[in-house]
Amino acid sequence: MKPVVTRIAGIALGLALPLLALDAQAAGVADTQGKSPKYVFLFIGDGMAMPQVNSAEIYAKAIASKDIAIKKLRFSQFPVVGMTTTYEAGSFITDSASAGTAMATGNKTLAGVINMDPGKTRKFTTIAEMAKSAGYKIGIVSSVSLDHATPASFYAKVPSRGDMYDIAVQLTQSRFDYFGGGGFAQPKGKNKDQADVIELAKNAGYTYVNSQADFQSINRSAGKVLAVNATLQDASAMPYEMDRKPGDLSLADYTRKGIELLDNKKGFFMMVEGGKIDWAGHANDAMANISDVIALDEAVAEAVAFQSKHPNDTLILVTGDHETGGMTIGFAGTKYSTFYNKIAAQRMSFQAFTDGFMKPYKAENKGAGKFAEVVPMIEKSFGLKMADLSAEEKVQLERAFVRSMGGEIEKNPLENDYLLYGGYDPLTVKLTQILNQHAGIAWTTYSHTGVPVATFAQGAGQEQFNGYYDNTDIFRKLVKLMKLQAAVKVAAK
Amino acid sequence: MKPVVTRIAGIALGLALPLLALDAQAAGVADTQGKSPKYVFLFIGDGMAMPQVNSAEIYAKAIASKDIAIKKLRFSQFPVVGMTTTYEAGSFITDSASAGTAMATGNKTLAGVINMDPGKTRKFTTIAEMAKSAGYKIGIVSSVSLDHATPASFYAKVPSRGDMYDIAVQLTQSRFDYFGGGGFAQPKGKNKDQADVIELAKNAGYTYVNSQADFQSINRSAGKVLAVNATLQDASAMPYEMDRKPGDLSLADYTRKGIELLDNKKGFFMMVEGGKIDWAGHANDAMANISDVIALDEAVAEAVAFQSKHPNDTLILVTGDHETGGMTIGFAGTKYSTFYNKIAAQRMSFQAFTDGFMKPYKAENKGAGKFAEVVPMIEKSFGLKMADLSAEEKVQLERAFVRSMGGEIEKNPLENDYLLYGGYDPLTVKLTQILNQHAGIAWTTYSHTGVPVATFAQGAGQEQFNGYYDNTDIFRKLVKLMKLQAAVKVAAK
Repeated sequence: MKPVVTRIAGIALGLALPLLALDAQAAGVADTQGKSPKYVFLFIGDGMAMPQVNSAEIYAKAIASKDIAIKKLRFSQFPVVGMTTTYEAGSFITDSASAGTAMATGNKTLAGVINMDPGKTRKFTTIAEMAKSAGYKIGIVSSVSLDHATPASFYAKVPSRGDMYDIAVQLTQSRFDYFGGGGFAQPKGKNKDQADVIELAKNAGYTYVNSQADFQSINRSAGKVLAVNATLQDASAMPYEMDRKPGDLSLADYTRKGIELLDNKKGFFMMVEGGKIDWAGHANDAMANISDVIALDEAVAEAVAFQSKHPNDTLILVTGDHETGGMTIGFAGTKYSTFYNKIAAQRMSFQAFTDGFMKPYKAENKGAGKFAEVVPMIEKSFGLKMADLSAEEKVQLERAFVRSMGGEIEKNPLENDYLLYGGYDPLTVKLTQILNQHAGIAWTTYSHTGVPVATFAQGAGQEQFNGYYDNTDIFRKLVKLMKLQAAVKVAAK
Repeated sequence: MKPVVTRIAGIALGLALPLLALDAQAAGVADTQGKSPKYVFLFIGDGMAMPQVNSAEIYAKAIASKDIAIKKLRFSQFPVVGMTTTYEAGSFITDSASAGTAMATGNKTLAGVINMDPGKTRKFTTIAEMAKSAGYKIGIVSSVSLDHATPASFYAKVPSRGDMYDIAVQLTQSRFDYFGGGGFAQPKGKNKDQADVIELAKNAGYTYVNSQADFQSINRSAGKVLAVNATLQDASAMPYEMDRKPGDLSLADYTRKGIELLDNKKGFFMMVEGGKIDWAGHANDAMANISDVIALDEAVAEAVAFQSKHPNDTLILVTGDHETGGMTIGFAGTKYSTFYNKIAAQRMSFQAFTDGFMKPYKAENKGAGKFAEVVPMIEKSFGLKMADLSAEEKVQLERAFVRSMGGEIEKNPLENDYLLYGGYDPLTVKLTQILNQHAGIAWTTYSHTGVPVATFAQGAGQEQFNGYYDNTDIFRKLVKLMKLQAAVKVAAK
């Protein structure tokens, strides 16, 4: 920080408090108490808590030098950080639907429910809808499909996040100004017998772009925009950052385009989700996880660049909806050491390895195949050398390989299938777990955990996000700052 | 908060910024810029990061009702929370010696080194020594031995934390006003051939108390006080809170007595360590861990009570020196659920079970013994019913039992001894791990991890502890707030 602060600190010091060296943060308070931020960014790292943020910081430093120090991300340099609890109505461990509902509407609900109460009868109004009513333009960006729980929490109300077609239809009815990123998981419904949501969007006045050329050339004259990435990887999501081909669009590109399309004198609200941080956490793949945290940070950089032009009117929030994977920066086998440089040798995500190598290999070698045959691909893809593995790790990989190939294997009385593989391709998940452990990174679950997340803030109203509060408070703090209660009341009259 | 704030906000609003509704936090800045807190409490939860704090909050709620919500601790209700990195000079994962050195002196050093540089030649001055020079009275309290790394970091300078006799001798030479809690690990040196440190302390003018009656009756007329708990459990430490007998002294008692002894018009600095939070984390015992977090919170309550009488002059900080155990609030086997009420059935710490049951049982049944014989004690001590265990868990416990008894066991090719037991009694550590997993709590290591810790603050200067900073900054912020640089310079003249 930042022009805001400097200027206002100057005023405060010069006119009023000559003896007090008011710091940047305090000066920020003075600046924003009287007015609402016109430009509000809410970045959500799905599955991103401090272990993920700090891992990205350690990784960034570890690949640059042998010095022990972190390299802060853009958003972890923000002047304000708060701790945020994430529990939902039915569990201390939330899912993305109930967490999204909490942040978007200020209400706790059950896992899987989007913007409805636990009884699934009452519907909640979202902050994006309130901002739309108040005259803000609205943008929703996600690296996963646009009908996924987190983006849906800002425009849809459904009893189940699995109702993805219903969610997509509500997207087309939202009147929001910009949707960008992944595609749709059920564009024609569960049974592929419904009206194509792309057609519904066009009928509702959206300009649909699906190529990089169209994306680059589109501008404000297009009106409402629905931009779906040309390349989709798994479940209609954008590729993991580490699988993104050079020149293909990034989360930062979708954020920058959103700023271009939404920028107007009445202001805008843009939610940008780094959704695949979560998916990499579920699969216990630290390198995919960290590179998607860094991709989110690149997107934040676009907001920071915009903020530098509108320092008094812009608020940037970066939070997580929950932690995923039970990631820790430490593993029993590596004791007090970490070796984050080891994961830098990983060349593709777990998903790309499963899709690009294991699936075709399995198809060619049904129930057969030899572990020795896949070793070169393991070494190439993950930088894991067989010579560096312990005897136990080799046995674990060989057994996982047999399981991946669908072969018979004698049950080991200590093994539990779900704990071992979590439903993922057995060899792939064991590879990333072992590689991560060699780096000093460990995981405890294939699900989410209940540990609080960090919320970073910079800009107008930032000081409201200090302290230890609940995810529902993010809604309340934003409504207060943006004065949306009043605006909605006026709109309702 | 608090009288401080109201008064100064009034000044700021009245004179200078009539249009700006300065909030309490911003006003706090104005208040404390001009003055130093006279009474400073630094509580250190050894091995306590957000997973430990939030687990205590979840536990406190889970045993009270079935509602999903946290019950905040006293210190997690503090108005300020910051995130604090803990890496040391040689690793992203610190030990308590280097972490203590960072907080006490603002310097990074290597693991194991106390208040000396990584080359082990230069000695650092600690904040407690600076405060002593500036006229503050000084108190050091710990639930582990007083010569352990964290308390030692405030008064000793040694190349190795293992030099515990040297540390203890330096304690007697410190001139600090109050030491309380655990005892000494090497009171007569490694070979038990040196002068007894208790005698050295008495010769240096300390009043030594070692009974509850003496402790209760001692008062300011005693001069410098060294109070060692009558009951010591492991390695000269106070018992785990869950093993403390009714009526025996607690960390809160040692804190309250410290306040009584140190209270004077020139002020005091008191460091209080909850040291066994860490030890329980190393052993992967969540209930012992959580109950010691709660014991630390009870000690904080004593400081809060004192603060209510001196609101303008008291600062209370509560932080951790690092995380221990890689604790997460979620386990693969319990997916999105937690069952913290299950650990409430645990009746003693892992240490009490090992010492009180396993050791005598092993002595009686050398190399033999039957698992069925220990089942009743397992059920009684941990509330773990054999009927609730999975087939894998039963095998794991039975194998651990054989290992505990020193019996022969066929090597399972998937097993790694250290990963399984971490050097602890095999049956005991497996029992707490399985019980914890049933509760939805998992661990990744028997060592520390690198994840940042939370720093909570309340009182004069609290706003300085917002944000994301390093553990060395805690020293710098305190020195600035307490104006110790200037004081030390004056004292040196």
